[in-house]
Amino acid sequence: MANTFGHLFRITTWGESHGGAVGVVVDGCPPRLALTEADIQPDLDRRRPGQSRIVTPRRESDNVQIISGTFGGKTTGTPICMLVRNEDARSEAYSEMASKFRPSHADYTYQAKYGIRNWQGGGRSSARETIGRVAAGAIAKKLLREQFDVEVLAYVMQTQRIKACIDPETVRMEEIESNIVRCPDASAAARMIRLIEKTRKAGDTVGGIIGGVARGVPPGWGEPVFDRLEADLAKAMLSLPASKGFDIGSGFNSILFTGCEHNDLFRARKGKVVTTSNRSGGIQGGISNGQTIYFRVAFKPVATVMHEQETVDVEFRNTTLRGRGRHDPCVLPRAVPMVEAMTAMVLADHALRQRAQCEGW
Amino acid sequence: MANTFGHLFRITTWGESHGGAVGVVVDGCPPRLALTEADIQPDLDRRRPGQSRIVTPRRESDNVQIISGTFGGKTTGTPICMLVRNEDARSEAYSEMASKFRPSHADYTYQAKYGIRNWQGGGRSSARETIGRVAAGAIAKKLLREQFDVEVLAYVMQTQRIKACIDPETVRMEEIESNIVRCPDASAAARMIRLIEKTRKAGDTVGGIIGGVARGVPPGWGEPVFDRLEADLAKAMLSLPASKGFDIGSGFNSILFTGCEHNDLFRARKGKVVTTSNRSGGIQGGISNGQTIYFRVAFKPVATVMHEQETVDVEFRNTTLRGRGRHDPCVLPRAVPMVEAMTAMVLADHALRQRAQCEGW
Amino acid sequence: MANTFGHLFRITTWGESHGGAVGVVVDGCPPRLALTEADIQPDLDRRRPGQSRIVTPRRESDNVQIISGTFGGKTTGTPICMLVRNEDARSEAYSEMASKFRPSHADYTYQAKYGIRNWQGGGRSSARETIGRVAAGAIAKKLLREQFDVEVLAYVMQTQRIKACIDPETVRMEEIESNIVRCPDASAAARMIRLIEKTRKAGDTVGGIIGGVARGVPPGWGEPVFDRLEADLAKAMLSLPASKGFDIGSGFNSILFTGCEHNDLFRARKGKVVTTSNRSGGIQGGISNGQTIYFRVAFKPVATVMHEQETVDVEFRNTTLRGRGRHDPCVLPRAVPMVEAMTAMVLADHALRQRAQCEGW
Amino acid sequence: MANTFGHLFRITTWGESHGGAVGVVVDGCPPRLALTEADIQPDLDRRRPGQSRIVTPRRESDNVQIISGTFGGKTTGTPICMLVRNEDARSEAYSEMASKFRPSHADYTYQAKYGIRNWQGGGRSSARETIGRVAAGAIAKKLLREQFDVEVLAYVMQTQRIKACIDPETVRMEEIESNIVRCPDASAAARMIRLIEKTRKAGDTVGGIIGGVARGVPPGWGEPVFDRLEADLAKAMLSLPASKGFDIGSGFNSILFTGCEHNDLFRARKGKVVTTSNRSGGIQGGISNGQTIYFRVAFKPVATVMHEQETVDVEFRNTTLRGRGRHDPCVLPRAVPMVEAMTAMVLADHALRQRAQCEGW
Repeated sequence: MANTFGHLFRITTWGESHGGAVGVVVDGCPPRLALTEADIQPDLDRRRPGQSRIVTPRRESDNVQIISGTFGGKTTGTPICMLVRNEDARSEAYSEMASKFRPSHADYTYQAKYGIRNWQGGGRSSARETIGRVAAGAIAKKLLREQFDVEVLAYVMQTQRIKACIDPETVRMEEIESNIVRCPDASAAARMIRLIEKTRKAGDTVGGIIGGVARGVPPGWGEPVFDRLEADLAKAMLSLPASKGFDIGSGFNSILFTGCEHNDLFRARKGKVVTTSNRSGGIQGGISNGQTIYFRVAFKPVATVMHEQETVDVEFRNTTLRGRGRHDPCVLPRAVPMVEAMTAMVLADHALRQRAQCEGW
Repeated sequence: MANTFGHLFRITTWGESHGGAVGVVVDGCPPRLALTEADIQPDLDRRRPGQSRIVTPRRESDNVQIISGTFGGKTTGTPICMLVRNEDARSEAYSEMASKFRPSHADYTYQAKYGIRNWQGGGRSSARETIGRVAAGAIAKKLLREQFDVEVLAYVMQTQRIKACIDPETVRMEEIESNIVRCPDASAAARMIRLIEKTRKAGDTVGGIIGGVARGVPPGWGEPVFDRLEADLAKAMLSLPASKGFDIGSGFNSILFTGCEHNDLFRARKGKVVTTSNRSGGIQGGISNGQTIYFRVAFKPVATVMHEQETVDVEFRNTTLRGRGRHDPCVLPRAVPMVEAMTAMVLADHALRQRAQCEGW
Repeated sequence: MANTFGHLFRITTWGESHGGAVGVVVDGCPPRLALTEADIQPDLDRRRPGQSRIVTPRRESDNVQIISGTFGGKTTGTPICMLVRNEDARSEAYSEMASKFRPSHADYTYQAKYGIRNWQGGGRSSARETIGRVAAGAIAKKLLREQFDVEVLAYVMQTQRIKACIDPETVRMEEIESNIVRCPDASAAARMIRLIEKTRKAGDTVGGIIGGVARGVPPGWGEPVFDRLEADLAKAMLSLPASKGFDIGSGFNSILFTGCEHNDLFRARKGKVVTTSNRSGGIQGGISNGQTIYFRVAFKPVATVMHEQETVDVEFRNTTLRGRGRHDPCVLPRAVPMVEAMTAMVLADHALRQRAQCEGW
Repeated sequence: MANTFGHLFRITTWGESHGGAVGVVVDGCPPRLALTEADIQPDLDRRRPGQSRIVTPRRESDNVQIISGTFGGKTTGTPICMLVRNEDARSEAYSEMASKFRPSHADYTYQAKYGIRNWQGGGRSSARETIGRVAAGAIAKKLLREQFDVEVLAYVMQTQRIKACIDPETVRMEEIESNIVRCPDASAAARMIRLIEKTRKAGDTVGGIIGGVARGVPPGWGEPVFDRLEADLAKAMLSLPASKGFDIGSGFNSILFTGCEHNDLFRARKGKVVTTSNRSGGIQGGISNGQTIYFRVAFKPVATVMHEQETVDVEFRNTTLRGRGRHDPCVLPRAVPMVEAMTAMVLADHALRQRAQCEGW
């Protein structure tokens, strides 16, 4: 069950970094949604290695194939299987990984858990697994847009100490995509790019924070008590490689306020209920309140560095290891579509759950 | 499915603030675990209202009854149903809630979702729902302790701006329970208690951060890719009332490091693999690595304040509302056993999953 | 997970024959359904021991209490917990069961599985567990009736060799309830009652077949490929105590036909698609086709007989055992509401699933 | 969720009759099981069209490719994706199906449910979907054999009125595979083959009964109350295309016995508990008792006949349709590996569940 996410809009991913292919099965997508590869590929291109000078140069075209679940360009309600072949797999670059555990990677824990591991490029723990998520997320985004008028966006808010200034209420996709780091604050973006390039040259890596936003979510999505919208978002985000933290609305900063200061006051406006502030981040009691949903996700600096580091080998002997292969100096630009994808899948799932239980009579 | 948590160690809670009772069904607990009410009650007493001068004075003895699933003082492998009767339910204190939505509460979103709500004391959105979690968590903690030699603890790390100094490797239950705020740093605890008392007198509320720790978890618990240990912990924590954020290990602070600085280096020690630092928080690639697991959970200031605030009524007309009833000036002391309970349930679930898939041959 | 049934209309049962109580949590019931104990009790009375001279004389009033999930006489969308106290529990009648395994009962297998068992009255394997199902089923039936205009019925078709003549298209609840064996064919019913009385006097037991019917199900409920409507019905029925077989539509008799003879031909009638025969039993490809759904469930003769039989004790030594206690000579009359309940829950679940995926745009 | 089966040994199938491929993802298979395509292909060859003169002549080599989840010829604990390309897809043979609903097929119900359908060869409702099940079942069978010493078999028991004489305790795979109808009673098999050939020439079809057997299952597999072993088997079997009924042990015939006659008496033998008869079919109270598990599955005559039959078109107008394309005159020979596969997956799932909850301390 570990490779499945969602209840009603449900995906199952499979595949390893250097196996034949990676992919996903989407089960539960409503029928009659127009869907071709052209709806999926753009998000995969945003996730693709080699897309700019600040990401890994591994060459993968990452062309997606829809091999089931559509007919005449529309979804049929049956499972949608999508597949991307692995191409530029230089296993030789990873041969040292057969016998040594990379620090702060999953090599050791996979070995400890399963007693076996596919060491080529990290195998299943490689971020190539997220191809399936991004492909499925593209469907969820289209479903949300066309069937529910909901827009999902993500963007880079902070890289190491460089903070951007972004308004979740108004930020637009064009602004995010206007630079290679995917930060809609152009001035901060320029500094971030310089930092990442400098870091890459030093053989080192940096982390940062991605912001996620969903606009247009009607009141009523999300479920008490365990499947709160923010709980499902938190799980979704912490399931992404290299993520270390999540907060919603005022988040960790909420603790600096008193209750009187922090509360979002309700006001009636044109027959609707709105709030005069949005520290709740659009969710109250686990359920959307109609305001913009926004949250943050922290990503640690990438673990693969081009320096020699102490580690142990598979025989549990001390040794050292120096990063090789083609790696990202910063995961953020490529993680933006992943955050969008996971957000969209959580929302699509809850949209269908809301429809099942609470609508229709 | 929204009221169920876990896969193999699975709980379902039910009940409202002012209904007849609240409770939980635990399904999947291994058989032959010694279990009586005496194993459960202490944790409920730590969660109980009226336990000290810094929590709500609502009087509930919260006596738990095990009504199925044990025989001769031992679990039988069948579902364990536990129940706590509601006693001191002064519904009249809440009558204004019938017609007005409390700011930053779940009143409005429940109404928007379901078209109906039990407005007495917040109904299902009341923190009384967590009684079932704490009761189930007490079983999970006992199972982890007796069957897996794992210890789970939680404690208050920060209240508003008052930070405690705590070492997750060595902190002990006696230290946590040595004061009413459940902060093991005695000096910080004293200041926190003064802050909470002062805040209560002002009719206001404060939030803060709870730390969670699991020691003794062997390498191999947790599952790629969606059911990563930290992802399930994140969901568990964000499902708690008033929680706003979660991070694991270095968490949000990880972004201040470079990869070279941040990596946890492996070393062989007495035939085991250890790390020289623990920024990973005991989890790598979603799987435990044998080091101490530690994380933080942010809780916002309680929304119920004893001041008049703007809001709307159920007819969507502007109005005001002043908090009444008996409420907590700070959720932290009573949330400590909740964090422990959720942590223990996540770990118990993964312990059984690991046993199912990877052990036994 | 073993004690939970359903996905969107989901129930969890708990409780043992002689514990304090048995009950159920219903999660996912739509909000705003009028619901009080008066909606539940009639079905429990049909399942109750002591209701007639052909069932066990155990005295249980089986009064149900709704302890959560409703407000002002309506469902709120939150989990509905219902509970029935055990009353007439003469444990002494079962003391021999502590040391001996009853033939064709679950005593041995529970012991083998769990290494422990509640031997009082069969513990969890007692048919008292079905109280929770019947209570939940009463809600599902009401939901189907009021929200989807679907009627669910069950009746005794055959007792040992006595077969009734019943038309699933027209059979009515009043006919079923017109006699204590719940067979709508009065003449067959009279013979069945005589057979059961004679069998009871002989200290023996008999089995038979229950028919189930659902009328008014619209085309489109049920899901390919694993959650076919007939697959979920089959699981539901085989989960009932003492059931040994299930078939849908023409069922086992389908094999006597050729394809040409067996096919249900489609015809257009008043803008709708109907079939000229209904060997499919209202389901094609796992999905309802708008015709009446009907199926059969075989129940073996009750295992507890008032004769000495060979068996083994808990030390695995050969011994003998003679049935004691108060038991049913025939499970059929009391199983009728159980079949209805399980049918209604399967249909309610699929009604919500259909709404989630395929409706609403 | 409809395309997923199992909890701990969990499969998800996808694909249509004439899409690019059909396949399956197996999640939860234990690591370190030796596995290559050579373990899978033999069962696919038993399911393959064109294998003999009594099955459809559609030419499909059905070569399976494992595209994830193994490394160095062993499972890694990560999801195993397997894929078979569709080859001989003569869509033109089905063009009439675009506008007409085939009687007793799923064309109409898919259209009613989804408002769209892939009409080529039945799309998702085609039996080609079972390729994924048979491939996954081959893994489950290997796991059961190697890790639990359990053997799973299925065979044809009856074709129309021709009954075979088979002992589930002793029947062997070689006997089953010794003839093209997969009936281990050679004399009955010869008559069955003649019947099927005669029926095919007449453009008609026949149905029958397949028996399933599992030997070596230890006491303790299966779970009360909903996930009884026979309940999960019933669901598994009724999810197979063309199946109409299931019974376990004495099944529908149990009703001809009295309780005294029907009970399986326990006896101690060499420190083990055995039964002197096996009307229970190896399962009591939903849990295996150590005896041989055996059951029956009824399959209706194939719906596609080479005769003109009345039906309606997609505009709901009366019309006629004559079967074309290449179809099976009898589903039984090819359904035998499907029954084995589903049986093996149910057992593998329960083996892991038993290990999770009840073993290990």
